[in-house]
Amino acid sequence: MTHSLDVAVVGATGSVGEALVQVLEERKLPVGTLHALAGADSVGQTASYKGRNLRVRDVQAFDFSTVQLVFFAAGQSVTAQFIDKARAAGCMVIDLSGGLPPEQAPRVVPEVNPQALEHLGAPYVVTSPSSVSVALGCVLAALRQVVNVERINLTACLAVSSRGREGVSELARQTAELLNGRAFEPQVFGRQMAFNMLAQVDQPDLQGHGLLEKRVAGELKELLVEPKLRMSINCIQAPVFFGDSLSLSLQTTKAVDLAKVCDALQRAPALECVEFEDYPTVVGDAVGQDVIYVGRVRAGLDDPAELNLWIASDNVRKGAAINAVQLAELLIKHYL
Amino acid sequence: MTHSLDVAVVGATGSVGEALVQVLEERKLPVGTLHALAGADSVGQTASYKGRNLRVRDVQAFDFSTVQLVFFAAGQSVTAQFIDKARAAGCMVIDLSGGLPPEQAPRVVPEVNPQALEHLGAPYVVTSPSSVSVALGCVLAALRQVVNVERINLTACLAVSSRGREGVSELARQTAELLNGRAFEPQVFGRQMAFNMLAQVDQPDLQGHGLLEKRVAGELKELLVEPKLRMSINCIQAPVFFGDSLSLSLQTTKAVDLAKVCDALQRAPALECVEFEDYPTVVGDAVGQDVIYVGRVRAGLDDPAELNLWIASDNVRKGAAINAVQLAELLIKHYL
Repeated sequence: MTHSLDVAVVGATGSVGEALVQVLEERKLPVGTLHALAGADSVGQTASYKGRNLRVRDVQAFDFSTVQLVFFAAGQSVTAQFIDKARAAGCMVIDLSGGLPPEQAPRVVPEVNPQALEHLGAPYVVTSPSSVSVALGCVLAALRQVVNVERINLTACLAVSSRGREGVSELARQTAELLNGRAFEPQVFGRQMAFNMLAQVDQPDLQGHGLLEKRVAGELKELLVEPKLRMSINCIQAPVFFGDSLSLSLQTTKAVDLAKVCDALQRAPALECVEFEDYPTVVGDAVGQDVIYVGRVRAGLDDPAELNLWIASDNVRKGAAINAVQLAELLIKHYL
Repeated sequence: MTHSLDVAVVGATGSVGEALVQVLEERKLPVGTLHALAGADSVGQTASYKGRNLRVRDVQAFDFSTVQLVFFAAGQSVTAQFIDKARAAGCMVIDLSGGLPPEQAPRVVPEVNPQALEHLGAPYVVTSPSSVSVALGCVLAALRQVVNVERINLTACLAVSSRGREGVSELARQTAELLNGRAFEPQVFGRQMAFNMLAQVDQPDLQGHGLLEKRVAGELKELLVEPKLRMSINCIQAPVFFGDSLSLSLQTTKAVDLAKVCDALQRAPALECVEFEDYPTVVGDAVGQDVIYVGRVRAGLDDPAELNLWIASDNVRKGAAINAVQLAELLIKHYL
């Protein structure tokens, strides 16, 4: 693989888009020209790439036939609006919005189901799953050889950066106002986010299930190729800027061998397993790192076939940007 | 019941002790003289009660025979140090520290297992369970008639006030330092608590189970009189000042009837069930209230026998002070 390819990042001014551009610079992806694209209101901003300031251009006016690879790192509506153009231009596409149906764009985490990329038809369109699914998928894949999971109980405490820059600014603003004893009008989250936990991260459906909760359940079933896995997925919003904190309880078919579990976690390149006396957190451990931290590995209080874990992962970097670039590396390896 | 009784609150300067004194003032407990007690280093402080400032006195020098009812609202070591004096003086005792063995001091939540108070022997010693168990116990008791719970999966996001005033000050200090761009040395929690989630709230045992996690499991089995109930209890520390946020998934023996569940929750006097389109949080809803808020009531994504819930409760007021005073009311009714 000696030739380079031209790449577009749609949503380059968002937090995930910015991390993507940074990861593209760090890793050895053979990028020729990089195009930073965004909506009309972001045109004129710049994206920092290899010591230069890339001018952000209007995605609406972009000629997709000038690139071979496109990352969609904006919302689902943006992907929906431009996916046909990118496909028609023959681009490989990696979508981070989660808005494409799985049969059109399989959900893939390289550490979990790389085989799903082996028999794609052109144009090659792949979904990089939600950050929660990336973290959980990596952990469950590492455990596949040592436990047989029947049911997953997850409470995922999401950082406000899951709502992009707006979420980050809102938590900072609310916190500052409160510390200064000033009243504020909640925006973005619809209520006080500072020093509070919110029961949901998006608008639930009529059955009460949130969009992300359903997305994570569907993604995990596809990633692990376990359509019958039972899952309780609870996504809650924490007053944390960056990093997902996952509280996980797995029900398995027989008594868990903790030594084998820890060994399997330690051998997985994507994971860092923290010793028993300590535990990882998003601040200080996971954020800014390329690996997912696992800790508090323990059996059930009253059920030896239960396995409890704590996971801390950088939702923007490992959960989105790195996974997407790893997918690009695999697509290039298979199809270019 | 016309005569009054003299009461001592040990730990009156702590956050739970302060709330206890306030609740004693609010409710109709026939208190004669109220003694605010604490360790030697708090002597000279005052506790506000019925418009007066009670002088805080040294528990070490206190003559327990001058009162008929004692609340222990300090740590387990304080209870251990003075419980025999209080017992020997014939006092009724309500312990909030959780340090006494259940066979000496049954764990009771009036809405859950009031029958446990009916056949006590003198001296009457009762434990007011942890705030997590009070909230969870009230919800599970309300559901007892409509679902048969086999397994409980709980992730409890605890407020820093679970660590008393020190915890509250530490979160405020860390947040202010960070917003001002200043470095700080973590105290109390051993690491950054502001804008972070911690995987545990105390030091786990050799199997990895935290003290509070084991306490909650034991308390719930006793409260619900279900020694075989299976429980995954995960207590994590959130950057929230007051209020426990509980993410709960119950596995039951048959398809859940959501209408019946909501009806049962709405009929329970201790609970406030929030409508489907909305959800409760600790800030703005639960904190400062005498009821426990429940929301996001929904069946499983792929299991109709699963019931998922969100609970928001004031850990200091409802979870500790009100429960303890309710216990006192029952003791007085039965034994005075």
